[in-house]
Amino acid sequence: MTTAMEPVWVGVDVGGTKVLAGVVDVMGHVGRTARRATPGRRVDIAQVEDALEAAVLEAADGFPIAGVGVAAAGFVDAAADRVMFAPHLPWQGQNVRERLSERWGVPVVLDNDANCAAVAEWTYGAARGAHSALVVTMGTGIGGAILMDGRLVRGANGMAGEFGHMQVVPDGQTCECGGRGCWEQYSSGNALVRFARQRMGEQPSVLEEASGGNPDRVTGPMVTEAAEAGDMVARQAFASVGDWLGVGVANLVAAFDPDVVVIGGGVSQAGDRLLEPARNALQRSLVAAAHRAVPPIVSALLGPEAGLVGAAELARRAGGQPRR
Amino acid sequence: MTTAMEPVWVGVDVGGTKVLAGVVDVMGHVGRTARRATPGRRVDIAQVEDALEAAVLEAADGFPIAGVGVAAAGFVDAAADRVMFAPHLPWQGQNVRERLSERWGVPVVLDNDANCAAVAEWTYGAARGAHSALVVTMGTGIGGAILMDGRLVRGANGMAGEFGHMQVVPDGQTCECGGRGCWEQYSSGNALVRFARQRMGEQPSVLEEASGGNPDRVTGPMVTEAAEAGDMVARQAFASVGDWLGVGVANLVAAFDPDVVVIGGGVSQAGDRLLEPARNALQRSLVAAAHRAVPPIVSALLGPEAGLVGAAELARRAGGQPRR
Repeated sequence: MTTAMEPVWVGVDVGGTKVLAGVVDVMGHVGRTARRATPGRRVDIAQVEDALEAAVLEAADGFPIAGVGVAAAGFVDAAADRVMFAPHLPWQGQNVRERLSERWGVPVVLDNDANCAAVAEWTYGAARGAHSALVVTMGTGIGGAILMDGRLVRGANGMAGEFGHMQVVPDGQTCECGGRGCWEQYSSGNALVRFARQRMGEQPSVLEEASGGNPDRVTGPMVTEAAEAGDMVARQAFASVGDWLGVGVANLVAAFDPDVVVIGGGVSQAGDRLLEPARNALQRSLVAAAHRAVPPIVSALLGPEAGLVGAAELARRAGGQPRR
Repeated sequence: MTTAMEPVWVGVDVGGTKVLAGVVDVMGHVGRTARRATPGRRVDIAQVEDALEAAVLEAADGFPIAGVGVAAAGFVDAAADRVMFAPHLPWQGQNVRERLSERWGVPVVLDNDANCAAVAEWTYGAARGAHSALVVTMGTGIGGAILMDGRLVRGANGMAGEFGHMQVVPDGQTCECGGRGCWEQYSSGNALVRFARQRMGEQPSVLEEASGGNPDRVTGPMVTEAAEAGDMVARQAFASVGDWLGVGVANLVAAFDPDVVVIGGGVSQAGDRLLEPARNALQRSLVAAAHRAVPPIVSALLGPEAGLVGAAELARRAGGQPRR
């Protein structure tokens, strides 16, 4: 029970389009939330910090703040202090953690959004009770995180979990990263759309009408909706992306042997349409599958608030008040 | 300094062809060693245990034994008690750790040989001082291990580190594991030999004479020797295997972001002939290579005794006498 003067823990997710702040209680429930538009990349850093502050203060609603966790859509350094680079934010190596902590006069923790979401799933969601977990986030690309004993594996550069750029096809599809054949070129929201676009002309599909006959207009949600309506092109797109999901997961499971694999991100909302082919591919591709407990592939449970919930949880832990 | 009555720590590596035991001091130096032939797979378990005992006692040479570490060439369960399966040993799920501990009346620890070798490299060898490390063992296939904070990541089934069976080529070379396109089909001792055999007919090579004109007779050491003599087929074989080594390492580094990557096993004795193309491929393939510290790829330092050294180290740690 929160009394009038009890300090609150706030998580804030700084994404490419919006800043979402929320008060998170000790059970992981999100109370009051507040959002602002992300000012963009070509603005002053102070503008982004103003937007964060406005969202955090509105969410806290006058309660004293015990600490703030910041989930950032970008590369966070190994010390979890700096945002080194973010495609939609102006930070480029600034000590964001320290700047915000000084500005607000409260403890601040920082990590990338995939890591924060993974902590939330481990503490309150689909990976609860697991000793070790892989969290694969499928949005336009693939991000992810590794948890061992409930702690994040952050890596020497803070870059652990960049699963999307594992090469799965030699000389395969060109990737924005400069590489070729990266996993996310075959299993992601972008891959889903590309598959549907390529097949549209080859067989009848409701996507023809939905896109006004222009494959360039096909979007991920369109493919999801078409698949639900029974459209074969859309269903094949999910089958392909799901199969590739399982192939890549099999590689990660061979390396890590986790208890559970959690799939989050927008594409995961398709549920079993995505996860069933992934489970089949994992069973087929995983070394010694007959001689081991093959880890379950499950959907993330916390949805779009996972980032802020995990960020608040990290702040709480840093403040010596771990949930578990 | 070891006095006459001071108990010794013994490591014993149970491989496919030989059992090698050795006394290991607190600096990781191997003292007296003893070896026995591995009795094989179709023998009584007691025969294997007799061979282990004979080697351990001969190595200890009358000194009291503080504890024994056993490195086994097989799958060891998550609890590190049982050898679930080993291609050249009769164990199939027996609690080897407990059996040997009861038989000898001293504490025994058990792990697979790749994990033991990794612990040795972290404590005394090429990964010394690293926070996190990947150890890739290139023999006929690829094995490996993951170290975080100097501790082994063993996995939910004790199967973490099975890097060799990550799929790197869709519908690629058939693998003994039942899969296709596994990494070790492109980067291993077997891959080295296969590459050389395939190219022998296409261009002149000293391997023609060395093998009596019969590609089936080409061996790994033959290819190594031919490469040293300047043979182009052999050098191309190393270039190919090294390039694939770097591609697979890039995938693992994308996922883990370790401080260092250590390459051990027989093939790694080729040194830079193998590692230079691997480093080039890592630099080329690794996501955001320009924005991070790309981990060094280095040769293992402890050679064929790494397994027994690491096993003894694990026994020492379990006995509350860690080296560090």
